Amino acid sequence: MKQQRHPAIPVVAQREFQKAWQQSLARALPISAPSQNADGARSPEFTDFEIPEEGVLAASYFDHLLREVVPFAAQVSSPRCLSHMTGYVPEELTKVGELALALNQNMVKYEASQTFTVLERLTIAQLHRLVYSMPLSFYERHAYAESSTLGIVTSGGTASNISALWVSRNRRLPALHDFQGIEDAGISAALAAHGCRRAVIIGSNAIHYSIDKAAGVLGLGVTNCLKVATTRDGRIDLSALRRTIDRCRQQNDAIVAIVGVAGTTDCGAIDPLDGLADVSEEYKIPFHVDAAWGAPFLLSHQYRHLLRGIDRADSVTVDGHKQLHTPIGSSVVLFRDPAAAAAIEKRTAYMLRPDSGDLGARSLEGSRPSSVMLLHAALHMLGRVGYERLLNESMAMAQFMASEIRARDSFELLMERQTNVLVYRYVPPEWRSLTERDQLSAAQHEHLNALNLHIQKVQHDNGQASVGRTVIEYRGADATVRVVALRAVVANPLSTTSDIVAVLDEQAAIARTCSTPFSMLERA
Amino acid sequence: MKQQRHPAIPVVAQREFQKAWQQSLARALPISAPSQNADGARSPEFTDFEIPEEGVLAASYFDHLLREVVPFAAQVSSPRCLSHMTGYVPEELTKVGELALALNQNMVKYEASQTFTVLERLTIAQLHRLVYSMPLSFYERHAYAESSTLGIVTSGGTASNISALWVSRNRRLPALHDFQGIEDAGISAALAAHGCRRAVIIGSNAIHYSIDKAAGVLGLGVTNCLKVATTRDGRIDLSALRRTIDRCRQQNDAIVAIVGVAGTTDCGAIDPLDGLADVSEEYKIPFHVDAAWGAPFLLSHQYRHLLRGIDRADSVTVDGHKQLHTPIGSSVVLFRDPAAAAAIEKRTAYMLRPDSGDLGARSLEGSRPSSVMLLHAALHMLGRVGYERLLNESMAMAQFMASEIRARDSFELLMERQTNVLVYRYVPPEWRSLTERDQLSAAQHEHLNALNLHIQKVQHDNGQASVGRTVIEYRGADATVRVVALRAVVANPLSTTSDIVAVLDEQAAIARTCSTPFSMLERA
Repeated sequence: MKQQRHPAIPVVAQREFQKAWQQSLARALPISAPSQNADGARSPEFTDFEIPEEGVLAASYFDHLLREVVPFAAQVSSPRCLSHMTGYVPEELTKVGELALALNQNMVKYEASQTFTVLERLTIAQLHRLVYSMPLSFYERHAYAESSTLGIVTSGGTASNISALWVSRNRRLPALHDFQGIEDAGISAALAAHGCRRAVIIGSNAIHYSIDKAAGVLGLGVTNCLKVATTRDGRIDLSALRRTIDRCRQQNDAIVAIVGVAGTTDCGAIDPLDGLADVSEEYKIPFHVDAAWGAPFLLSHQYRHLLRGIDRADSVTVDGHKQLHTPIGSSVVLFRDPAAAAAIEKRTAYMLRPDSGDLGARSLEGSRPSSVMLLHAALHMLGRVGYERLLNESMAMAQFMASEIRARDSFELLMERQTNVLVYRYVPPEWRSLTERDQLSAAQHEHLNALNLHIQKVQHDNGQASVGRTVIEYRGADATVRVVALRAVVANPLSTTSDIVAVLDEQAAIARTCSTPFSMLERA
Repeated sequence: MKQQRHPAIPVVAQREFQKAWQQSLARALPISAPSQNADGARSPEFTDFEIPEEGVLAASYFDHLLREVVPFAAQVSSPRCLSHMTGYVPEELTKVGELALALNQNMVKYEASQTFTVLERLTIAQLHRLVYSMPLSFYERHAYAESSTLGIVTSGGTASNISALWVSRNRRLPALHDFQGIEDAGISAALAAHGCRRAVIIGSNAIHYSIDKAAGVLGLGVTNCLKVATTRDGRIDLSALRRTIDRCRQQNDAIVAIVGVAGTTDCGAIDPLDGLADVSEEYKIPFHVDAAWGAPFLLSHQYRHLLRGIDRADSVTVDGHKQLHTPIGSSVVLFRDPAAAAAIEKRTAYMLRPDSGDLGARSLEGSRPSSVMLLHAALHMLGRVGYERLLNESMAMAQFMASEIRARDSFELLMERQTNVLVYRYVPPEWRSLTERDQLSAAQHEHLNALNLHIQKVQHDNGQASVGRTVIEYRGADATVRVVALRAVVANPLSTTSDIVAVLDEQAAIARTCSTPFSMLERA
């Protein structure tokens, strides 16, 4: 099994990356496995729908995994895999993870996790301090206090966002003299008691779909997640936001939260958090920041300023499994007010009793693993300096890729680079001057859409490199059209400039050798 | 680190448990670590609230873990730890888990998981077949069809129950001619459009608190999770249920779901699922079964009958990390109707596109780990026969413990044993005849409550054994009182009869040597 392992990341503070060696390992397997497509042919192992009667020895099960499953997994840690916001995990962390699996602590209650409850509260406090910079005395008072919740560890950014908005919903429509509060009585009764027409969440049209999901799950309704226009750089338009808020207030809507994003999924844009905080204070509306992607920039002296104002948010989502490189399944939502999460508290007779210290009293999930151990390990093995270096390198590599795209006669950068997520597209050299003068016709945009869709698919199926794709608003002089964009997430510490060049070269080659007429290509 | 590892479980079908050896390992560490209490003194490592500037080498980090953290973790796999429904994990599974961590697949989309998406769909189909016994042709059609959702893998039973009730809520209040449906429009608008007063969930008063949580999160309101009385054996009273339903219908309430439990947290009772299914069909109300604990009994020919009627449920929660012994973080909610989960579907421009095969289009979570690999591994390494043996042994051990409790003159079994969760209490021998004749006064019950609270706490702090505790209804001839119960979950394959005896002996010893007068003991 050794050769199937993903490469180790050295501890950055101590030694240099041995990139060449690591890359050769990460390249041993193809990124994609078209023959194992969900719709394609499958080996007999995948069509036996009965739980086997007799078990097999572990050795033969592992053999099955290594033959049938592992080689066809997504090679998300490949230095030429630029499609995902999750991926590369240092080998040291998989060792920590194995220990966590063996100990199998249950974070729902102190009796089933003990020192891990302490470790979780510590790690949350450290991240809280990173975001909110409260004085140390604040942490001495709240980090371990049963009644304080500096944050909630969840399985992912979606659960963190839902948790934050659940808290916010409940605080916005609290108990009144003759009303028991929304958590107990439900939304209909809450709106009636508070004399509101509906409850809404407001964010830009670039917020993550988990906010829509939250609006749906929490019973507000997806259409009551109001989307405000973004400016050309993908950041929320503050004037448009104010207009939306004013309209809501006129209509007597309860605004549950304004949601800012620090690192949009589409293009890595960071909303003007200070401006959002101003609006939040002026109108007295709770302010949540989805910093699942961007929060780690706080660890870099060079890029910390991008998040200015985040400490004024009521709650902040931070993902471990994105730019902190922990395995998938570790996210945290932080609360500025240690008493905020009381709004979602639950108690039972067999646990979560008052003063129990049980973390499960205030959380979306019940039984949950000690994934926080991986976060603690990562923060302590890399340190702030280690992360700073990874982030600065990642930004430099994204800068390099943006320059490469600009320098070539067959690519177009579709938005100014803000962080380390790029959106761009292939444009045939003969059309390049048209794009520069903003003279592409709607039909030509359509052609490019089909061509870029084709490039992304073929490259992925080739199995040596991949980028994502999305649809973005392309703002011409006269009109705004929605165009297909290639999307590169440049955050794998193993990626070198030659990897970036190779990704673009292959895309250009696919385009040049594409013999299918535009009209025959599949449409987005 | 080797000596800190938890013991291996041999593949049951191939060889015998080597219990003595395994137990000696599992006993190497104390179950509890009172000195590390959340409120107690902490070492300096736990009061540094700043992320360290410089990282440390992995070796020294591991040293820290092994000195400061691991020895004070809860020893949940100890054969004398009878307090939790999660715990023992076979060592083979931690190896599979390490591989899963290294591959770091993201189950939200096919491109980031590929063959793991296939593996997840397969495993869901196998569990679906276990519960619903549809013909194989059904699985050939639906297991891999993009538009079909036989189940959703989640991080835990709570997320599974919330997911099921989210689906059920949306299906109960769907789009109408001039109404777009509850998911889009929210609950208030939905209730108005459907002419309903409120939306409710109905279950017994023994359902898991995650159902209350679901009612809160989903915006129905916790007080609209209606609790029906249980019969003396802890199962839902079907006549009381019918009365509640009739009342709801008179009041024009939308009943989102009837929730049955297969294995209550308090006492392992299994609701009369066939009877619940009859009511569900008669009144045309969706029927969800929380079988987080009990579903694996379907793998035992001897105990399968306990769940009769489960195949008539619209959705069923099954936890891997309880009686399937996978590490915490693997649960599945199954849907009888493969189209049901369309009610919660979400799409985005960058993924989850129609026909993508992306599992994240219909799930509560977004990015999530390939925990299903552990479920697949466990089902294939143990096989049905392996689980059958584990379950039968567990039931036999619970039977042994119940007999021991009955045979002693200083214990009282508080409810008839139904499965492998027991509730009982210590009773001084001189009061035993009073309990048998149901002649205890309220004050005497109070005394016993304080004494049993004391026993449970002291035993846990002693660190050699532990049981849980809860509060249950004690039905006397004249009145029902709520009493403190000791609660033993007898499901660790490592536990032997001598472990059970030792647990009870220690409890009796603690009670006999308790020098604190009843009046001074802490109250529940």
